[in-house]
Amino acid sequence: MSDYDQRSLDLHQKHGGKLATEVLVPLESRDDLSLAYTPGVAAVCSAVAEDVSTAYDLTIKGHTVAIVSDGSAVLGLGNIGPEAALPVMEGKAALFKAFAGIDAVPLCLATQDTEEIIETVRRIAPVFGGINLEDIAAPRCFEIENRLQDLGIPVFHDDQHGTAIVLLAAMINAARLVGKELSEMQIVINGAGAAGTAIASLLRCVNADGELCTPVKDIVICDSKGAIYQGRDHINPEKQKLLSFSNLGGKQGDVHDVLVGADVFIGVSKGGIIDRTDVQKMADKPIIFAMANPSPEIMPDEAAAGGAAVIGTGRSDFPNQVNNVLVFPGLFLGAMAGRAKHITMDMKLAAAHALADYVQEPNSDAILPDPLDKGVAKAIAAAVQAAI
Amino acid sequence: MSDYDQRSLDLHQKHGGKLATEVLVPLESRDDLSLAYTPGVAAVCSAVAEDVSTAYDLTIKGHTVAIVSDGSAVLGLGNIGPEAALPVMEGKAALFKAFAGIDAVPLCLATQDTEEIIETVRRIAPVFGGINLEDIAAPRCFEIENRLQDLGIPVFHDDQHGTAIVLLAAMINAARLVGKELSEMQIVINGAGAAGTAIASLLRCVNADGELCTPVKDIVICDSKGAIYQGRDHINPEKQKLLSFSNLGGKQGDVHDVLVGADVFIGVSKGGIIDRTDVQKMADKPIIFAMANPSPEIMPDEAAAGGAAVIGTGRSDFPNQVNNVLVFPGLFLGAMAGRAKHITMDMKLAAAHALADYVQEPNSDAILPDPLDKGVAKAIAAAVQAAI
Repeated sequence: MSDYDQRSLDLHQKHGGKLATEVLVPLESRDDLSLAYTPGVAAVCSAVAEDVSTAYDLTIKGHTVAIVSDGSAVLGLGNIGPEAALPVMEGKAALFKAFAGIDAVPLCLATQDTEEIIETVRRIAPVFGGINLEDIAAPRCFEIENRLQDLGIPVFHDDQHGTAIVLLAAMINAARLVGKELSEMQIVINGAGAAGTAIASLLRCVNADGELCTPVKDIVICDSKGAIYQGRDHINPEKQKLLSFSNLGGKQGDVHDVLVGADVFIGVSKGGIIDRTDVQKMADKPIIFAMANPSPEIMPDEAAAGGAAVIGTGRSDFPNQVNNVLVFPGLFLGAMAGRAKHITMDMKLAAAHALADYVQEPNSDAILPDPLDKGVAKAIAAAVQAAI
Repeated sequence: MSDYDQRSLDLHQKHGGKLATEVLVPLESRDDLSLAYTPGVAAVCSAVAEDVSTAYDLTIKGHTVAIVSDGSAVLGLGNIGPEAALPVMEGKAALFKAFAGIDAVPLCLATQDTEEIIETVRRIAPVFGGINLEDIAAPRCFEIENRLQDLGIPVFHDDQHGTAIVLLAAMINAARLVGKELSEMQIVINGAGAAGTAIASLLRCVNADGELCTPVKDIVICDSKGAIYQGRDHINPEKQKLLSFSNLGGKQGDVHDVLVGADVFIGVSKGGIIDRTDVQKMADKPIIFAMANPSPEIMPDEAAAGGAAVIGTGRSDFPNQVNNVLVFPGLFLGAMAGRAKHITMDMKLAAAHALADYVQEPNSDAILPDPLDKGVAKAIAAAVQAAI
């Protein structure tokens, strides 16, 4: 057991998790009780009954998010169930509060059925101003998020889009650093789960007007069977969708094969699958994002030995951590401040550009802001709200 | 609009409701993030995955309750829906925190279907150490509570049992005051909804050994059609159950008729339905609990004019407020401290006796403790935990 492990266990044991309720009103006198509870509260109930939109101002709805998980794809631990997923959801809630002042309730569900998850989110929605879906396995995470877009409040699967937005910001600054245009880059994504699919989709997204939002043209996506190409075996409907814009040249082979000559490697799969010889075969000034946790697809020193110009990981103990906490607090803050009903592609792109621009002078050890910089969420919120 | 109304609206508007999230762990450094979130949190998840009972100590489960409502029977306002019910549930959550240190999450559901409410509670249960059902209309509140008793955590409909427990405590002390035995009293309950049914059931309850727990023998229950007696019209299954132990003498007539000669009037119905002449026709030293809100079944001055010896209401501006806040915080505190799987009749009776005994010298203006007395919850918790 690592030092972190025991200290984290002790910390969680000490408090009984990480969250508590704070009461915002006094409850010391009869007068206090009469205002917070009966009889005074009846006037507040009546006001909301008359105009349900006042719930945003008169109740917690305006500043409270539900973090919903089925515990099926938690960290690198996999399908560990709802109770075991709760420490992660509590951590996420703590980050919402610390970075954006948003109150969040972790809801880990005793079901892993797509229909039941969708139903349950619909039923608990009245209390919340937004829904953060978390650690739900692919492919059901896609369907759940898609079908909940009519809920009237933002529903956002952070494992997909949070990672994708931070990665796009990192790509924008990495491209600046190496003096290449995104439109000229060959990109290999290893991993076709929730994160890989979302990254690919954001890199090639179209906006509400049907225009291509990002200039990326050349993406090849690999799963455990190698490059995904038209006509290959083991292509599920989600992967088939990816082929509408990826691997238009029909490359075949494994990840080592398709990395030859590529400009960017994006790993959202598992540790140690490439090495310095792969990096050496990439184009000039290769960019490496090795985001598997806790073991990256390639360790930073190995990538550097292979000649990588920019290296990012998912870990806090290396430079350029591609960390979702850089995005989700500000994204929800902006969306909820603007009472957005959805998180649109334009809002995601606005968040990515705001995040990239927040770094005034990117260098190879700092293409992204420090995850602890509490100014990031405000900058992203402003950009997201403006993009609603 | 009353003074309370406007001040309550202002208070709720000022804060955006009454609740926020408090983060119990520091989040200032990389080390903090590594303990509260990744990578450290993985050890906590793994510990819970290995032994799910550790969730009580390592997550919020051990100190967090869900307050679940469908918004169908809110205060005197009726079926106002989930968003409009939220101010009440937030108030309840605030009381849980203020009086017992329990963290509570208000969940107002976008469904009023019995099956869907049951399903939803089952699905959200992993996060919570207890479920407080609130403001759900009769008769579905009975079925929902009954069918959720296998959930493994206490599921308690406070509108039924909270009121009943406080009322029983008040009865115990009122009987002492007037020098009567509960076993000799004739009791009339007006109102056969959730509260009236629960009161009647608690007054005539049997414990786990099948023994009668309270010595009350003579109860007549009235609904809007008068006394409920065997063979009457408009007897639903819930009311039929009440007839197994109430009105064994088969009294007929309206509430005025059956009050003649009675010792106790318990009103959980609507305002102004009896007057001083009814009280005058009761037995010597009549006891009146007129708990309709905001207008009692009889105002205290009117009851006193009729000769009432003890008068209780549901209102904070008269003596002897029969207020649920006297019970539910301590009841859940004791049940959760003892990891009870249910709230049993024995635990309810223990709570009632602890509450009655908390008043050292009952007098006609103080048969119950002050609702603001923060020692009450601890006394009840200890008694309840001992009764598990």
